[in-house]
Amino acid sequence: MAEVQPTIEKVNGFKVAGVHSGLKKDGNLDFALIVSDTPCVAAGVFTTNQVKAAPVLVDMERLKHHAHHIRAVAINTGSANACSGQQGIDNALQTARWVAEEIGCSEDEVLVMSTGVIGTQLPMDKIKRGVQLASDSLGDNWEAAARAIMTTDTKPKMAFLKDEQGRYQMGGISKGAGMIAPNMATLLGVMVTDAVLTTVQAKRSLYEVVNLSFNHIVVDGDMSTNDTVLLLANGRAAFSLDSLGDEARFIQHLQKPATKLAKDIVLDGEGVTKFITLIVDGLPDDETALKVANTVATSPLVKTAFYGEDANWGRIIAAAGRAGTPLNPENLRLWINAGEALDDPTELLLFDYGVPTSYIETYALEIMQSSSITVYLECGMGSGRALIWTCDLSHDYVSINGDYRT
Amino acid sequence: MAEVQPTIEKVNGFKVAGVHSGLKKDGNLDFALIVSDTPCVAAGVFTTNQVKAAPVLVDMERLKHHAHHIRAVAINTGSANACSGQQGIDNALQTARWVAEEIGCSEDEVLVMSTGVIGTQLPMDKIKRGVQLASDSLGDNWEAAARAIMTTDTKPKMAFLKDEQGRYQMGGISKGAGMIAPNMATLLGVMVTDAVLTTVQAKRSLYEVVNLSFNHIVVDGDMSTNDTVLLLANGRAAFSLDSLGDEARFIQHLQKPATKLAKDIVLDGEGVTKFITLIVDGLPDDETALKVANTVATSPLVKTAFYGEDANWGRIIAAAGRAGTPLNPENLRLWINAGEALDDPTELLLFDYGVPTSYIETYALEIMQSSSITVYLECGMGSGRALIWTCDLSHDYVSINGDYRT
Repeated sequence: MAEVQPTIEKVNGFKVAGVHSGLKKDGNLDFALIVSDTPCVAAGVFTTNQVKAAPVLVDMERLKHHAHHIRAVAINTGSANACSGQQGIDNALQTARWVAEEIGCSEDEVLVMSTGVIGTQLPMDKIKRGVQLASDSLGDNWEAAARAIMTTDTKPKMAFLKDEQGRYQMGGISKGAGMIAPNMATLLGVMVTDAVLTTVQAKRSLYEVVNLSFNHIVVDGDMSTNDTVLLLANGRAAFSLDSLGDEARFIQHLQKPATKLAKDIVLDGEGVTKFITLIVDGLPDDETALKVANTVATSPLVKTAFYGEDANWGRIIAAAGRAGTPLNPENLRLWINAGEALDDPTELLLFDYGVPTSYIETYALEIMQSSSITVYLECGMGSGRALIWTCDLSHDYVSINGDYRT
Repeated sequence: MAEVQPTIEKVNGFKVAGVHSGLKKDGNLDFALIVSDTPCVAAGVFTTNQVKAAPVLVDMERLKHHAHHIRAVAINTGSANACSGQQGIDNALQTARWVAEEIGCSEDEVLVMSTGVIGTQLPMDKIKRGVQLASDSLGDNWEAAARAIMTTDTKPKMAFLKDEQGRYQMGGISKGAGMIAPNMATLLGVMVTDAVLTTVQAKRSLYEVVNLSFNHIVVDGDMSTNDTVLLLANGRAAFSLDSLGDEARFIQHLQKPATKLAKDIVLDGEGVTKFITLIVDGLPDDETALKVANTVATSPLVKTAFYGEDANWGRIIAAAGRAGTPLNPENLRLWINAGEALDDPTELLLFDYGVPTSYIETYALEIMQSSSITVYLECGMGSGRALIWTCDLSHDYVSINGDYRT
């Protein structure tokens, strides 16, 4: 199986740019453009927030009618263009129009993404400058593009992968940091490939990989107005997914960069000091398991205990108990493990069928001091299972979000 | 209408004590006892967490059969006696038995409450000492009792009220601080009265006042395994609620100390710097409004914005949008106000039917700098309404919960 690797750093037929247009005050890159030489088949997964930002509404509409003919994605920081009314929609459309003029395509073939403060209008002079500067500097600098979409992220996030038989390539960038939630995040992701996909295959592939990557990460439980993950396939590799086997393999491949882009978001979450893999097992079905896992992963008491390196496991049990689904304490077992212990997450048993074990506190402390910890909760009521990647809640999270706008 | 007042500081026929039995390391009061000279009619409201602490299970059982014949409530700190198996149940029963022996009643007439770390067994030697010391020092020192049930609380919480015609008295104590959630908290509350109540009246009164007080406070969205509010009526005043009018007036009276005890919990929440009154209006029904209000009140991004005194209202709209209920951004209006502006919460309009207003930022800042702020969200879809008292999320919350056990 192909590994996510830096041996390729671009995808055939795609050009990108990341520029500084004045949206960020500090001179950092703040506007990104991804352009395909030829029209792409595209798919998108969007926030389920009832309040959707203008670029989300524009992209959703565009993918209804033009999913087989997308040329570019423009991404600005500084303003989320959310809660911005008709003017926000007009500004999103204008951004796409400028991109279309620069690269020579129809405005319907351009998608837009925004991230930043909610409730402000896009500063259109800076957006215009961004479009021009980015169009003039299109090339292979994916890192610049990844940097240009960062907000409170501290690191650019990229991942690439080449099919082991060299038949196609894929790659992408993402940003996250705060607001990372049960259903995605202020998460923007763009994945591209040179494989030939039908619109149905693009949609199916993206849904499947997002479901096992971006939808499994929790930083703070908030869900943004702007969450979007796009997939663009330009067909340059002339390899089409003719059999179900081809498609399954393609999805397996796409899962790798998607998983890396998602995990990197948790690792780079606001103020994160611990990466936590949470496995909840033994519920009647997967959906119920996910509900319990999300409640544990978003509990401030659980998250601060991890930050404090305190094996205060009672908080995990208490959070599970308020998830809104029947649980019998006498069926519960809870383990913690150092590292990402997916194969055998049963290192240290803390709670055994409703009774605390006589575990050794120093051993628990040692595990809690790891930078990566796996928590395994077995509920003994069935085979429903959920996996979530999450993190702790630190002083820095409060600092970052206490003065984000200022 | 009678006000909550310090003019009475006890309730006829009830004796209390708060002592140091060694449960807290710092020498502070840590064990409380409330005893009625004569048997009480009692009612309780308990956590809906699926994982219920031993004292909760014991009290629920006891109130099924002995609600007309309760003499005492014993409350320990240091250990929640939750996730403690059969031994936890046995220890809770033993605690009640010791109290019964000391004050001379049947063990079935004693209720127990615990607060502290989950997953530890009660240190029964200290509990025994607590029972003895408290029994020996029963008197009118309600403040000592209120202090003896504090955990991370910084202030004792008490409230008393005398009917304006002097027909009956009521009062109570509470503790809260962390884990304060949509449905109560690691919240313990005991309310007492010398009015004559039937078991049905006691239950009805308690449910009604809890619903409009303790159930409307949110600190961090966590819900404890131990949440309990009790009402004991010893009938010493010889005034019974013979008419529906009497009962309605009694409930109106009881609401006052209950509301004070609940609000004091938010004001004394872990690391709280702002008291926030959140009103969500205009949903199809009250339950939906409460769902939206709870989502806003538990959003870490909303809470940190208040801590940072940042009128980042987009986070409020975004949180409302992910509450899991249909909302139309074009119907939304949002105001903020200095103080507890229940009568006219429309001081500064920030968001007007889907569009940001051109409010003056310094004016918004001035409001955000108040220690008490009212947020009013009108959703324009009906007349369902919810009121929640909540708070910000500060560095101190993280500090307190990052090393609570250590």
